[in-house]
Amino acid sequence: MERHFDEELKDLNLLILKMASVAEEAIFKSVEALRRQDKKLAEEVIGSDKIIDDLELEIDERCIDLLATKQPMAKDLRFITTGIRITTDLERIADLAVDIAERAEELVDQPLVKPLIDIPKLAVLAQEMVKGALDSFVKRDIDLARNVRNRDDEADHLRDLVQKELIEIVSQDGSKAPRSIPLLLVARHLERICDHATNIAEDVVYMVEGMVIKHRPF
Amino acid sequence: MERHFDEELKDLNLLILKMASVAEEAIFKSVEALRRQDKKLAEEVIGSDKIIDDLELEIDERCIDLLATKQPMAKDLRFITTGIRITTDLERIADLAVDIAERAEELVDQPLVKPLIDIPKLAVLAQEMVKGALDSFVKRDIDLARNVRNRDDEADHLRDLVQKELIEIVSQDGSKAPRSIPLLLVARHLERICDHATNIAEDVVYMVEGMVIKHRPF
Repeated sequence: MERHFDEELKDLNLLILKMASVAEEAIFKSVEALRRQDKKLAEEVIGSDKIIDDLELEIDERCIDLLATKQPMAKDLRFITTGIRITTDLERIADLAVDIAERAEELVDQPLVKPLIDIPKLAVLAQEMVKGALDSFVKRDIDLARNVRNRDDEADHLRDLVQKELIEIVSQDGSKAPRSIPLLLVARHLERICDHATNIAEDVVYMVEGMVIKHRPF
Repeated sequence: MERHFDEELKDLNLLILKMASVAEEAIFKSVEALRRQDKKLAEEVIGSDKIIDDLELEIDERCIDLLATKQPMAKDLRFITTGIRITTDLERIADLAVDIAERAEELVDQPLVKPLIDIPKLAVLAQEMVKGALDSFVKRDIDLARNVRNRDDEADHLRDLVQKELIEIVSQDGSKAPRSIPLLLVARHLERICDHATNIAEDVVYMVEGMVIKHRPF
């Protein structure tokens, strides 16, 4: 028996949310691995990348099948094409968590050049932005999406703080470069995660506005 | 009069190729700006980002319209959904060229810490990979796509070379950090461009294989 279109859309929603929560968890764990210098946790993040890749394939297949078999119009069409774009961003977010975990592995046997303060803040921001962007997608909530987009400057600011401080440390003592540069990169990886969350939020704004345009009486 | 579907697909092809060539040019110019310490050229790259964003919107709109009005099946459906994904990658590639141009601006008034050798090589590789990936998409050529994907290791290797050399320079003389770290980041930006080209190539493999599966007699 053919399943109802609304049910299939709900399933698609759930799968995308699942992919997002795996990505969020990877961000959290990668920074925890760095903070606690925990090699096993870093490896766990690196290993979890396959789950994300499989989810991406599954979601894409479902989107393409829905397009092919249900030939959705207007708002459902936009929802599904936005879904295709969002999985790309989530996959990159998970890749960046793997990048962070690799930096954590590089630093696991050496004392940290400084206590981590702004990096964990940036990690929390990144997780909140990813969560907010996905909520805005599922609820088709343009205000929530705009909220996420507005926090991108915060991310840039935190990354700049980390970067400036680490360049100062290295300028004063070049021998600290191999322990400082990975941290500088982690701040950049986290800021890029925020960029991807911003992209998702912008796609949602565009999706909702497109829906509105398509639904205007003239 | 309604236009023919094949013609509209051809137009879509041309638009995607145009977006790719703007992105390729931005990569070239951003690294030229760095090499020649040319502030004006760097600004030009930063300004060209709007062209890419406009092209992305236009291509997406056309894809969504084609999905809505023509309800394409099988291979055309996959071609269009792959098109949606590719514009996302091209937009990120252009963003990364802007990142490189911003690093070029930071370095414009200071002598380079070392002559640039591997960075221009990496830039050429990045342009070739982007071009190859797009060719493979338009020609639906799985061998060409696999070729692009196989060059990703070259990109990682070149980035690692640049990174190692610059960390050594900074380790020996910390005061060179503010001039070395932007170059290290440029190598990373270029390697990420190669990653995006690889993503496009993988999407093409997946698209062509998907077409084959859909076309199997059983």
